[in-house]
Amino acid sequence: MNQRKAILVMGAGDATGGAIAKRFAREGYVACVARRHADKLQPLVEAIEAEGGTARAFGCDARVEEQVQALFATIEQDVGPLEAVVFNIGANVQFSIGDTTERVYRKVWEMAALAGFLTGREAARVMQPRARGTIIFTGATASLRGRANFSAFAGAKFALRALAQSMARELGPQGIHVAHPIIDGAIDTAFIRETFPELYQRKEQDGILNPEHIAETYWQIHCQPRDCWVHELDLRPWTETF
Amino acid sequence: MNQRKAILVMGAGDATGGAIAKRFAREGYVACVARRHADKLQPLVEAIEAEGGTARAFGCDARVEEQVQALFATIEQDVGPLEAVVFNIGANVQFSIGDTTERVYRKVWEMAALAGFLTGREAARVMQPRARGTIIFTGATASLRGRANFSAFAGAKFALRALAQSMARELGPQGIHVAHPIIDGAIDTAFIRETFPELYQRKEQDGILNPEHIAETYWQIHCQPRDCWVHELDLRPWTETF
Amino acid sequence: MNQRKAILVMGAGDATGGAIAKRFAREGYVACVARRHADKLQPLVEAIEAEGGTARAFGCDARVEEQVQALFATIEQDVGPLEAVVFNIGANVQFSIGDTTERVYRKVWEMAALAGFLTGREAARVMQPRARGTIIFTGATASLRGRANFSAFAGAKFALRALAQSMARELGPQGIHVAHPIIDGAIDTAFIRETFPELYQRKEQDGILNPEHIAETYWQIHCQPRDCWVHELDLRPWTETF
Amino acid sequence: MNQRKAILVMGAGDATGGAIAKRFAREGYVACVARRHADKLQPLVEAIEAEGGTARAFGCDARVEEQVQALFATIEQDVGPLEAVVFNIGANVQFSIGDTTERVYRKVWEMAALAGFLTGREAARVMQPRARGTIIFTGATASLRGRANFSAFAGAKFALRALAQSMARELGPQGIHVAHPIIDGAIDTAFIRETFPELYQRKEQDGILNPEHIAETYWQIHCQPRDCWVHELDLRPWTETF
Repeated sequence: MNQRKAILVMGAGDATGGAIAKRFAREGYVACVARRHADKLQPLVEAIEAEGGTARAFGCDARVEEQVQALFATIEQDVGPLEAVVFNIGANVQFSIGDTTERVYRKVWEMAALAGFLTGREAARVMQPRARGTIIFTGATASLRGRANFSAFAGAKFALRALAQSMARELGPQGIHVAHPIIDGAIDTAFIRETFPELYQRKEQDGILNPEHIAETYWQIHCQPRDCWVHELDLRPWTETF
Repeated sequence: MNQRKAILVMGAGDATGGAIAKRFAREGYVACVARRHADKLQPLVEAIEAEGGTARAFGCDARVEEQVQALFATIEQDVGPLEAVVFNIGANVQFSIGDTTERVYRKVWEMAALAGFLTGREAARVMQPRARGTIIFTGATASLRGRANFSAFAGAKFALRALAQSMARELGPQGIHVAHPIIDGAIDTAFIRETFPELYQRKEQDGILNPEHIAETYWQIHCQPRDCWVHELDLRPWTETF
Repeated sequence: MNQRKAILVMGAGDATGGAIAKRFAREGYVACVARRHADKLQPLVEAIEAEGGTARAFGCDARVEEQVQALFATIEQDVGPLEAVVFNIGANVQFSIGDTTERVYRKVWEMAALAGFLTGREAARVMQPRARGTIIFTGATASLRGRANFSAFAGAKFALRALAQSMARELGPQGIHVAHPIIDGAIDTAFIRETFPELYQRKEQDGILNPEHIAETYWQIHCQPRDCWVHELDLRPWTETF
Repeated sequence: MNQRKAILVMGAGDATGGAIAKRFAREGYVACVARRHADKLQPLVEAIEAEGGTARAFGCDARVEEQVQALFATIEQDVGPLEAVVFNIGANVQFSIGDTTERVYRKVWEMAALAGFLTGREAARVMQPRARGTIIFTGATASLRGRANFSAFAGAKFALRALAQSMARELGPQGIHVAHPIIDGAIDTAFIRETFPELYQRKEQDGILNPEHIAETYWQIHCQPRDCWVHELDLRPWTETF
């Protein structure tokens, strides 16, 4: 047996999830990256391997209990013990209350909260017998306050924060570190570049978050000794009003 | 036509919902009370009528969009304009993260958050053309902080708070008052009396909340002039630690 | 002896303090109103008496321990038991951090926090033997968040909130109700009318707070039965963004 | 000219301040350490020099404007540009509201809030022309909530948090990073060891915070690129309830 330490990034489709996977891979972790369609993860796997790291891509609909459970079983059996699990799925939508359909309200919650619950619970289950491990849920501005047109998205992000708090208070004394970084600002992604070109121009003056810097913070959280754990922290560019 | 002002209490099964309905009925509102099985509401309707008030009981599964929409349509057509809508459905469960099934996590959210969304959205839709009305969502201690064994319940209550905040910021400038009272303590109910008899003994020294006093606060919230609206407030017995 | 119930409003110089004094006087309380220079309180006393109420004006520098103690002693001896004490002194200033002098930082704290502490402590001392009474500290938007140019004012209002919270947790189980309403918006005062005339124009559409409506809320807080006490609540006009 | 980058730790008397000074000294910063009586800093200076670092000890009463200003002037002139300033003075006292003297309430505020303001303002003044630098204010559990017997201490820590927030919002867009770590738990200090021996026994299982681990976090905060700054974060041992 030569099992290696593993990290799972659930929702590795975007820049942030990818950067986190790379950061841990550089430290020798097997980067297990998951999203709905595994084939879209091929460029990320190749990038990690090009750096000398090891990565494994998994297709997984994180809203489906059986798929999440199968994913954890496979990694623990075939790859190695999950030392860190990052839940990084967002679902940012904006609708007035009147225009928010039941379907949208439900789907946003399933993606951003239910999937977080399934991921977090399975992570707890594999980590509890080992009494160690790190579980990180990615938060957003909408985790802290509702606002007009945010009923669905804020509802899901509030629920995820409740999960992170509840799990931290329950699992901390069991040796498992649960953290909830709140990303408060635009991230340097293809989505922002293409959808909000004016916003993206802030990049020149470091006005949008670099995914690698977010990843560095996640790595630092994972490395904290257990006498000095952070639970919640906010991350934003220097120019961001808050 | 001699339509009268109406209040809807969604989740009128417990002491609090009933007390709120009575309080508004005393002011001449038609108390529309709803819960899953309308027949259980008969004692409440009779109590209101015995006081000289008017009440209407409705069976409604608040998690089902069509039923909620039909309820609002019926009241607006047959009873009168909804001046106040109170969402009062709880779903207090406690499970460790490992023991929380997908079904429980989903059901708790459907009862305490999705149903709140459906109720709140339909309330907004009927009130927006009139540019007036009050929508109150009942919160709990778990609306503000997660804790061990509260992943499901806190998740749903956090989501409901996000809804209340988002709707308040969206609908306030449209003339609709959205409030989120947080009940922080045991309420004088049959459930508490039977399940937690020691806790219930606090009643002798006013250590548990009297539903009539909660109802008085809801009435006061509804009466606030629009230059002086409360959004969030906490209510607890004098002996409660917090 | 025919002592009557008394309320003390510390900082009764502005519209809000005056309205609170009037509101309680209408219920038969002797309205004890205090500010630095008692002669400026004459119009308020006359207005209360014109309504058939009773009022007493006191000169008191609320930052000076001996004066505050003497004021409480005088009222308790000459007027009657203080059933309610309202601390209503503000000190809103705005300076960039670099332009905030040591003198300003200290004076703002003395007016808005130290004076609140002295008032609150003396109120506690007279109420504790009776195991009843209401103490209300008026908060502001700056009680909840700092912002540019608010280092001094937010510092003082945060400190006052810490006082209100600490006293509520300490004195609640002793039968004393401590509340912290947060006024989030402009109030209808001569100051706003003269200094911010554009802002004042919002009055026509109820866009600024009516002091009488704030006073009504304070009265309601005082009347709450001890099984159902509010500690913190926010009050704002319907048009206010938050 | 061969000026070197400097850090100032105001309140370097305890284990945390000392560990922060050491951590930055290891990176080549001149560790300027200050407390009321400079002679007590000699062991710290020697420890830093023994590691090959450079340290300078300063006597400074941080509550006295002239002394704080003189300290900053001396460092900037004689040592080098202050790249980081840490305010680390605590003043933990516990008294019931009735037993809190005016003197105690004032002294605690002067030590934990006024001194923080003076330190923060002078830091801002020297950093603003350079448009860079890090200012860190050390928070505590009492920064977030008041509780019985904490009127004075929570008042001061709330005020310090207001300062940190206000300065962050004002100075962030000027290139200066302001952070507010909240230490939620006992720290491994001589004070805890001698005063709370039972509490100190938690050390064996990592139940109290290691100052070196706190210092590592402070160093990481200082190193964050400006597109990804943390403002507030909580640090606690794994066993700590919260």
